[in-house]
Amino acid sequence: MFQINENYQKLPGSYLFSTIGKKVAAFQEANPDKDIIRLGIGDVTQPIAPAIIEALHKAVDEMGNAATFRGYAPDLGYEFLRSAIAKNDYQARGCDIAADEIFVSDGAKSDSANIQEIFAADSKIAVCDPVYPVYVDSNVMAGRTGTYDAEKGVWSNVIYMPCTAENNFIPEFPKETPDLIYLCLPNNPTGTTLTKEQLQQWVDYANKNGAVIIYDAAYEAYISEADVPHTIYECEGAKTCAIELRSFSKNAGFTGVRLGCTVVPKELKCGDVSLHGMWARRHGTKFNGAPYIVQRAGEAVYSEAGKAQLKEQVAYYMNNAKVIKEGLKEAGYTVFGGVNAPYIWLKTPDQMTSWEFFDYLLENANVVGTPGSGFGPSGEGYFRLTAFGNYENTVKALERIKAL
Amino acid sequence: MFQINENYQKLPGSYLFSTIGKKVAAFQEANPDKDIIRLGIGDVTQPIAPAIIEALHKAVDEMGNAATFRGYAPDLGYEFLRSAIAKNDYQARGCDIAADEIFVSDGAKSDSANIQEIFAADSKIAVCDPVYPVYVDSNVMAGRTGTYDAEKGVWSNVIYMPCTAENNFIPEFPKETPDLIYLCLPNNPTGTTLTKEQLQQWVDYANKNGAVIIYDAAYEAYISEADVPHTIYECEGAKTCAIELRSFSKNAGFTGVRLGCTVVPKELKCGDVSLHGMWARRHGTKFNGAPYIVQRAGEAVYSEAGKAQLKEQVAYYMNNAKVIKEGLKEAGYTVFGGVNAPYIWLKTPDQMTSWEFFDYLLENANVVGTPGSGFGPSGEGYFRLTAFGNYENTVKALERIKAL
Repeated sequence: MFQINENYQKLPGSYLFSTIGKKVAAFQEANPDKDIIRLGIGDVTQPIAPAIIEALHKAVDEMGNAATFRGYAPDLGYEFLRSAIAKNDYQARGCDIAADEIFVSDGAKSDSANIQEIFAADSKIAVCDPVYPVYVDSNVMAGRTGTYDAEKGVWSNVIYMPCTAENNFIPEFPKETPDLIYLCLPNNPTGTTLTKEQLQQWVDYANKNGAVIIYDAAYEAYISEADVPHTIYECEGAKTCAIELRSFSKNAGFTGVRLGCTVVPKELKCGDVSLHGMWARRHGTKFNGAPYIVQRAGEAVYSEAGKAQLKEQVAYYMNNAKVIKEGLKEAGYTVFGGVNAPYIWLKTPDQMTSWEFFDYLLENANVVGTPGSGFGPSGEGYFRLTAFGNYENTVKALERIKAL
Repeated sequence: MFQINENYQKLPGSYLFSTIGKKVAAFQEANPDKDIIRLGIGDVTQPIAPAIIEALHKAVDEMGNAATFRGYAPDLGYEFLRSAIAKNDYQARGCDIAADEIFVSDGAKSDSANIQEIFAADSKIAVCDPVYPVYVDSNVMAGRTGTYDAEKGVWSNVIYMPCTAENNFIPEFPKETPDLIYLCLPNNPTGTTLTKEQLQQWVDYANKNGAVIIYDAAYEAYISEADVPHTIYECEGAKTCAIELRSFSKNAGFTGVRLGCTVVPKELKCGDVSLHGMWARRHGTKFNGAPYIVQRAGEAVYSEAGKAQLKEQVAYYMNNAKVIKEGLKEAGYTVFGGVNAPYIWLKTPDQMTSWEFFDYLLENANVVGTPGSGFGPSGEGYFRLTAFGNYENTVKALERIKAL
């Protein structure tokens, strides 16, 4: 009789955002007249920029014509897109990353879940706490995380690095040396980040201790301060210890378009084995490329028109972030983030738990946010609001919150 | 010091189609004047059908408008697409598969590589020999296949079911009971298939022995004979033992558009655990949906106009199959397949090995095919040609082969 992967049975409850979705649906069904404003899941609301729409139409036409039709894409992604990424996101910042170190994918979520596969089954992972759930859950499925303590909300074999107001959301080097360190900067969910100097210390730590940093740069487009790095490869030595994940979801609104990429530098090795070669093999065996039309859309992100339009789109969301942050402050909340990231991280009032505050906000203000505890035990007592709503709804949501 | 997944080191050489690609590129570079005809990789050449192009343009426009913009898709795929698949591919054939048993994905390659994850690490797999390499390689990466015997081209812990001219390409029940049985029908690479009665025996075998059949139906649109099942769910009892993978690559030319789906019936269980729930959890954690515009393209496959246009497209390729099959017969080759599948499987002449014949054909006819041995040891001495070229090139390729 066949047997299942028992690690799946260890996963507590369902994926955080599925749970929120179900709760909201139930509330809406019970209260069909309520106008719910969603500032919970990190989904964007602004339409795809005109320069990208134009590129999509053009690529669709190409697919309808025998002379320009494209079948299977190259394993690593089309050269036109990989070159545009290398040039704009890396070389323009003085980072020596080549086009063939970039692997195009269907999104950073897939990559951040799949990257663990190329490491040993007994690898020890370290994550910030709170953390984007996918990093941990994908390792649970692979059997690396030990047993779950439901009361504390922690896994016995995961190194947690608490990031709270007490340490200014700066993770400290763990006592036990990890093999893999997941860092998401600017951070989801806290909206905080590290300076270049602080990140350099992590790169030095990883190189010294033989660890690999999985660096999730999904929110880099929202950085507004000068001393915050846009890529880990701005730090010296990062090419021998870091893999970087990038997303088009937040800088270009591609949550429903699906495009991402991962940088695996050729210098990153375990003994003689190049992780670049391993990831290439994974891509070649288990993936068949992002859609041609979507890769053309990605290319348009880097066109002059695309850049200008997306700069406006980011500014639009960051104006929302300001509305949320200022509004919450006025209402007496303690708030973090929102300066280099589209997330505002607030302390729940009156000792409420994160889920108590979720219910309170949903029921009384009809506003959906994300409970901090859903991101890990150190998220308890915090709550995340996102700047990805539209402006009018964001203003309305804050008015409702201020009126509570 | 971090360690890698050592299973990757066991993989011999690179992925078959990457190797072919490199060989062809080297030949073309050395012979820039040669007009190479590619009948190797199973990539299509006909443009996307007009009804689908129209749906793509419409969806692109929706993405450019705030009122109709779509962000993250539902985990399982959009209801409009899942319903269209359930209705057309299953219910219309009398198979009781519901829309919520269908999981939309970015393609059958990803699904066929990822599906093994939900099974135990020590699951024993059985594959036809020859076989689509992804089934085996994804299990190698997961550490299930034992050690590789380079001379014989087999893994110590895989059950091989030879399919050769000697047994009319009908796999026999293995002596040792497998946990997972991969069946691709109509078959890639042999182009042969099973009758409904023959497949029913496999379903009965799986139910009796507690095995799960991973049924790859990527080529079902090419079935022309009445007694060949279009889905495994035409067989009685399949819902308690079979997962079915479907592709839009071959019936609608989506190799560069990327769309597939997997059916996991709710009745398929291991004890109390529903595999449907496990696959849903995997989708929710490690995948973020196929692009909205691509799911709309998938929906258009099932429109009246789409169906009519794709029927023509399939007929076009099957005419190529006939050209290849008849041409090879005229040239004295022994050939199989090509009736219910777009693949023609031929015996290499003069005791040539599969790779010898690959080189011979590339150098002398400038035609690219796929060496049978790349699909497994029982593929040695065979060679695959595909009907996915354009008609003119297919005719030209066969003229060259006949002239050898």
